Amino acid sequence: MAEAGTAPVSVSLNSDIGEGYGAWSIADDEALLGLVTDANVACGFHAGDPDILRRTCETAAARGVGVGAQVGFDDLRGFGRRFIQVPKQSLVNDVLFQLGALSGLAAVAGTRVSYLKPHGALYHATTQHDDYAGAVVEAILEYSAAGQGELALLCQPGTRLAERAETAGVPVVAEGFLDRGYTADGLLVPRTEPGAVITDLDEVCRRAVRMVQQGTVEAADGTEVRMRVASLCVHSDSSGAVEVARAVRAALEQAGVELRPLA
Amino acid sequence: MAEAGTAPVSVSLNSDIGEGYGAWSIADDEALLGLVTDANVACGFHAGDPDILRRTCETAAARGVGVGAQVGFDDLRGFGRRFIQVPKQSLVNDVLFQLGALSGLAAVAGTRVSYLKPHGALYHATTQHDDYAGAVVEAILEYSAAGQGELALLCQPGTRLAERAETAGVPVVAEGFLDRGYTADGLLVPRTEPGAVITDLDEVCRRAVRMVQQGTVEAADGTEVRMRVASLCVHSDSSGAVEVARAVRAALEQAGVELRPLA
Amino acid sequence: MAEAGTAPVSVSLNSDIGEGYGAWSIADDEALLGLVTDANVACGFHAGDPDILRRTCETAAARGVGVGAQVGFDDLRGFGRRFIQVPKQSLVNDVLFQLGALSGLAAVAGTRVSYLKPHGALYHATTQHDDYAGAVVEAILEYSAAGQGELALLCQPGTRLAERAETAGVPVVAEGFLDRGYTADGLLVPRTEPGAVITDLDEVCRRAVRMVQQGTVEAADGTEVRMRVASLCVHSDSSGAVEVARAVRAALEQAGVELRPLA
Amino acid sequence: MAEAGTAPVSVSLNSDIGEGYGAWSIADDEALLGLVTDANVACGFHAGDPDILRRTCETAAARGVGVGAQVGFDDLRGFGRRFIQVPKQSLVNDVLFQLGALSGLAAVAGTRVSYLKPHGALYHATTQHDDYAGAVVEAILEYSAAGQGELALLCQPGTRLAERAETAGVPVVAEGFLDRGYTADGLLVPRTEPGAVITDLDEVCRRAVRMVQQGTVEAADGTEVRMRVASLCVHSDSSGAVEVARAVRAALEQAGVELRPLA
Repeated sequence: MAEAGTAPVSVSLNSDIGEGYGAWSIADDEALLGLVTDANVACGFHAGDPDILRRTCETAAARGVGVGAQVGFDDLRGFGRRFIQVPKQSLVNDVLFQLGALSGLAAVAGTRVSYLKPHGALYHATTQHDDYAGAVVEAILEYSAAGQGELALLCQPGTRLAERAETAGVPVVAEGFLDRGYTADGLLVPRTEPGAVITDLDEVCRRAVRMVQQGTVEAADGTEVRMRVASLCVHSDSSGAVEVARAVRAALEQAGVELRPLA
Repeated sequence: MAEAGTAPVSVSLNSDIGEGYGAWSIADDEALLGLVTDANVACGFHAGDPDILRRTCETAAARGVGVGAQVGFDDLRGFGRRFIQVPKQSLVNDVLFQLGALSGLAAVAGTRVSYLKPHGALYHATTQHDDYAGAVVEAILEYSAAGQGELALLCQPGTRLAERAETAGVPVVAEGFLDRGYTADGLLVPRTEPGAVITDLDEVCRRAVRMVQQGTVEAADGTEVRMRVASLCVHSDSSGAVEVARAVRAALEQAGVELRPLA
Repeated sequence: MAEAGTAPVSVSLNSDIGEGYGAWSIADDEALLGLVTDANVACGFHAGDPDILRRTCETAAARGVGVGAQVGFDDLRGFGRRFIQVPKQSLVNDVLFQLGALSGLAAVAGTRVSYLKPHGALYHATTQHDDYAGAVVEAILEYSAAGQGELALLCQPGTRLAERAETAGVPVVAEGFLDRGYTADGLLVPRTEPGAVITDLDEVCRRAVRMVQQGTVEAADGTEVRMRVASLCVHSDSSGAVEVARAVRAALEQAGVELRPLA
Repeated sequence: MAEAGTAPVSVSLNSDIGEGYGAWSIADDEALLGLVTDANVACGFHAGDPDILRRTCETAAARGVGVGAQVGFDDLRGFGRRFIQVPKQSLVNDVLFQLGALSGLAAVAGTRVSYLKPHGALYHATTQHDDYAGAVVEAILEYSAAGQGELALLCQPGTRLAERAETAGVPVVAEGFLDRGYTADGLLVPRTEPGAVITDLDEVCRRAVRMVQQGTVEAADGTEVRMRVASLCVHSDSSGAVEVARAVRAALEQAGVELRPLA
């Protein structure tokens, strides 16, 4: 519960939405859009088609859910999870193409794209390769400079991508992962190691509240790590995603945390 | 030459540009962008990729060439020349997706999308089916209503698409075809009939000047048809496209016609 | 139950399988492959990718399920349900490409493609347009003539496709639809009309047994129509597909009908 | 000229053919198919569509040109020149899919696929990563074991791919590059270094004859390197490709070398 006399703490809850294609879907978007505050909307490269983009934006707008561009590699077959060696300038253009496509449909749906989040293998590439991080940051800067609107970058604090964005003056929204273990350095425990995934729902909820209210997380080795985040990520494509979102939302509200879209 | 005392007559010269994909190209875009006033830029559905879109917009911007969205069916394999049965609402969304993608890259390149022209089989579908014509018009209306900018529609006068656009209040730019024969009704002679294509370059040039200065064209049956146009189309993918563009441009300038972008 | 002294009546049960793509799936293939005798395997044009093709062929081979090529229009976005205007020769080549791709993976999986069934909008086009029916028949003839193996055509009797195939000497396997109403002419009641879909599971089972044992079906207007079929189709992408397949299989076995793959 | 009393030395001349897509093309396939003995035919993943595959196979068959499967990453946009991180088993399946598709169309065209050559980034990956080399070799072994026909592997001697293929018992056809400089180790001089590309046409011809007749090449540092090859590669997508093929063919014939397809 929020302390008396102070403004209530608030946080955003984000999830990947609109990751179907044509006749295919992968998550219960309808249910998730009733629980999260911000939707990372796929833009057609790793998933998503014009119908899905529009429908997702319309539902998000109707429910007051924020819209972010979830940009990825151009790879439907691999769902954006396979690294592709894209020259830097091509990657800038790919990101701008996706941003523009989503922005047009968002505008028609009565909302706008307020942030960007790289997806899958592109996300990982931006945390490891300067060219990939730089391309994403450059696309955001060019997009804003061209009068297309201010964009924040939603990403994990402490990564190369976050640092490059901050240095370049791009607003960074720090993201926390509910179902992932952290190292003492504040990074994620690799999926190949023990403690990488938190499966206990009560534990997930406790960590969520602690991250928001205290700005800390307990690392896999037991140390307390500073982790001040503005948005919590709920994975949409795992079984039980809706259940996790519902439980975390309830736990946060119970603790007096306000759930609020990023923009 | 324009008569003394009157404002010089002007016209736009448009051509399909940016119709490559990846390593492939189909026209001499570089040369054509030095000759036309307006580029119908492919948006990635029948041709075009983010790199090509950007490069085309940048070159157009640098040379004062206007940018239009050349929207098509989602069919790289068929180059947008095969009819696809797309539900009306999907087609609206497909057009908006293409418009948004091009708009973002145009903005970054320092220009903007000022008009739309349907490509290939989509163009033909809009002249024959109400749903297809209606979808294109609706997309333009929604795009403008959402504050994404005013868009004109570049199309042949007298077609169903032109009529629907005019009725809906969408500004229509009448387009004339330099290398195509006309019927007495002011429509194009079907390609399967004699007189469908004008191949003599002098004849093409004479028709261009006449269409602009007198607002008429001689039909295949010899009758004079009223054909007041604001833009002349130079086909880019025929052999000799650059030569045609150069000759027509010279003939128009020689006749005192000003060559001016649409917006 | 089969009459004493006669060979037991047999039938094939077919279903569309392998209609996912990358991370997406649409049906419970694993369960269906335990119930049907023949799998209409998507070949990558409307659905399916090399991994799915192989996995499906391997599971089919392991369970003694026959493999057919479910060929479609080249349209992942539309799941092959949108008509595309494909020139006849291109369609022949498209079908051969799909057949070859599936055949190679089927061979590696230890089985072979024994029949072909057009999917979705291609199926409908072959029942209405001579060019489309002709292209499918021609592809089968060329494939067999080239020593790639004998292929039967699985399709509804009385259609243009069935007639053209029979005339050309292609073996036709007559297909019956369990959950669709029939007209007095032996064709399907259009989905826009009453009686198009049979939803009662008991009714579906009774019709299945009757079609196999008596070679008749009761039309929507109550008349008895001759309908001698060699394979019954279970739609895989409707909810309850597995339940329908299980019930029909049980009803047929209960009636003494042997369930047997086509080849 | 071949010495009297000995069998004439022979060699194959190979080139990448059929690398267009839909309306796009990239090389003068028609002219090249009149000069080379073996066509590395693109299979639809990095280039090529069913129409092109068939037309290429038909022309090759008519002219006695051998057909090889030029398999690549699934990346039309990048023309197969971008590395994609494909899991090993998926890569095996991707290669088999391409092999099967081309084999079916080759059979219909009256010929067969006799060898395989990886394209672009896939080729480079197979020379560097065991998983990629292993996947290609495994696909060839599985294809042959499944009775789909014997396949040779066309690749540069001394590479990891060649070694793995030899170890596995796959017949390897050693390939020489006419317009590339060699290191003293018998590998190619990287394109970023001096001496990487041989542009003088006479020099290219002299090297071709020497490689075939003496089994050696002069490395960039002047040393003589053993380079016994069975096929010489003519790059098809460089300007002057046809001129190079014509000159090399003439020089080889002049020297008494027989030009003969691989199978």
